[in-house]
Amino acid sequence: MASFECPIPISDYDRITLAHGGGGRLTHRLITKLFLPLFSNEYLQRLHDGAVIPSDGRMAVSTDSFVVSPYFFPGGNIGDLAVNGTVNDLAMCGAEPKYLTLSLILEEGLLLKDLWEILATVKRRADEAGVLIITGDTKVVERGKGDGIFINTTGIGSVAEGVHVGPERIRPGDLIILSGPIAEHGIAIMSVREGLEFETPLRSDTMNLWPLVKAMLDVSREDVHALRDATRGGVASALNEMARSSGLGMVIYEERIPLKEEVRGACEILGLDPLYVANEGRFLAFVSPDRAEELLQAVRAIPGGEEARIVGEVVEEHPGTVVLRTAFGGSRVVDMLSGEQLPRIC
Amino acid sequence: MASFECPIPISDYDRITLAHGGGGRLTHRLITKLFLPLFSNEYLQRLHDGAVIPSDGRMAVSTDSFVVSPYFFPGGNIGDLAVNGTVNDLAMCGAEPKYLTLSLILEEGLLLKDLWEILATVKRRADEAGVLIITGDTKVVERGKGDGIFINTTGIGSVAEGVHVGPERIRPGDLIILSGPIAEHGIAIMSVREGLEFETPLRSDTMNLWPLVKAMLDVSREDVHALRDATRGGVASALNEMARSSGLGMVIYEERIPLKEEVRGACEILGLDPLYVANEGRFLAFVSPDRAEELLQAVRAIPGGEEARIVGEVVEEHPGTVVLRTAFGGSRVVDMLSGEQLPRIC
Repeated sequence: MASFECPIPISDYDRITLAHGGGGRLTHRLITKLFLPLFSNEYLQRLHDGAVIPSDGRMAVSTDSFVVSPYFFPGGNIGDLAVNGTVNDLAMCGAEPKYLTLSLILEEGLLLKDLWEILATVKRRADEAGVLIITGDTKVVERGKGDGIFINTTGIGSVAEGVHVGPERIRPGDLIILSGPIAEHGIAIMSVREGLEFETPLRSDTMNLWPLVKAMLDVSREDVHALRDATRGGVASALNEMARSSGLGMVIYEERIPLKEEVRGACEILGLDPLYVANEGRFLAFVSPDRAEELLQAVRAIPGGEEARIVGEVVEEHPGTVVLRTAFGGSRVVDMLSGEQLPRIC
Repeated sequence: MASFECPIPISDYDRITLAHGGGGRLTHRLITKLFLPLFSNEYLQRLHDGAVIPSDGRMAVSTDSFVVSPYFFPGGNIGDLAVNGTVNDLAMCGAEPKYLTLSLILEEGLLLKDLWEILATVKRRADEAGVLIITGDTKVVERGKGDGIFINTTGIGSVAEGVHVGPERIRPGDLIILSGPIAEHGIAIMSVREGLEFETPLRSDTMNLWPLVKAMLDVSREDVHALRDATRGGVASALNEMARSSGLGMVIYEERIPLKEEVRGACEILGLDPLYVANEGRFLAFVSPDRAEELLQAVRAIPGGEEARIVGEVVEEHPGTVVLRTAFGGSRVVDMLSGEQLPRIC
């Protein structure tokens, strides 16, 4: 993992002030002394309020604001989510991530060293994902009007010819691939909030999903019908949204859904249903049944996809509804999450 | 001005709750019952986490987070800024604004009717500017961890062939056009914060600058060298940034800078230098001297540009420095804003 040395000396006590957001000398310093050396590239270097990029064909665009609390958590920080989350939204459009914008809302008093650590993480993840940070913005709000740091990233990716991914392409009979064990991100956040400690530390599953998606598209662009990452609201909400958008029914099999033993235990302690717990590095793919096994193997060959499984199928019955077949042979409707289960999980 | 009827009944007491940001049923309702009917277009309708747009040639990208306080102010609200501000950043790249993303960070307890009014403003301004809202995101933070509403918009525009706008194209001898009277946005915000009342109400200057820029580019793509809107930090900071980026000196003439009498008075009462006060609908253009008059007339022919003037010139002397020639024949260096003058002005 690359490490980045801070270009200016930062003490343990240096903090963000309102003047860092005022558009004057301190804003200029923050940008030219801290942000530019770290993210340095031809677009940012021009110091304009926007970037001009070459483009051709179809571009995917996605935006996400990250407000996760706490902003450092087991397995990552808000910077990991800010890159991976938006990169993943592009991947879910079947798009190769290319560019990111980075917009910060900082609370007065944020430790500069925390900001640096988060930005260095953004840089690391962006490099790994092969995306360039092309333009940005920084605002500062008074103490008590924010919560340390909120980050918005907007991503732009390119969609290759022949790739058409979307809920309208889902067909009855499609199989549903889940890319890995569920509920780890949400449980990692909740356990630190609740001060719980486990023998095996629970870590966020945040990761870049594009390599897994690319592996599938390399097998067949035609047979990958739809993709959805299972973030806020978990696998249950993602399935429900896809059932509603496609106007079809979904059936999933409880015993096929990968779930680590320690995560299951933590869910029980916290009173949470793992199907509703947020993931930041897991997705569902709706694929042609005749190529499903091949597509599954492609995902499993990529690091982070080893535990992928076929967990269910698309049916004509009960349109718009998701049904879970339990290990004991029963079945129940898996509805959308009703209330707020895990606020500020991403 | 188009008005939009709210598609669901909202009482004066309905408020945003944490569950509206949880990714479950209430999030889904907020999006499908409120956002979708208002912003309805082919991209949003797909309810995916991203949008796929056609593109060709060079695209400009810009991002901005808006945290203005208060979020309703004389002459507009945060929704006006969220559209105009990002549209203007694209215009400053010489790009025709095409698409916007819209990301909301709402504080628990925000009145739903306020949210609706702001979103209806976003819709109105987006329609006027001819931009489509193609994808979005909504997060909710607990009471006391935000401040009503923060909005991020990221804009995508297309840059026509032959348009090359940027500080590196500024030449000694270029003339500087200022598009209208200054300091109105900042003073409108400050006067409401300070509870000041004036005989003539002071209103924000927020407006879409693309029609003015387009008028200039229609006269000559070659002779418009660089553009900069004078937002945070005002005309002084914008000029300083351009002086530094171009490595040239700038001279401006005090008596040529348009400033309304009531704004001058308010600045005196508030102890503010109008050169440093934020504008949300004013820009500087750096243009070839031999076409400057023609370009100026093009701007003046467009509503909102009637009071544009040539206010200064670019020189080889004092590189990186801005000098103001006063009405009395003196001159002084106009430096970057040092501290925080007006926090949360946009």
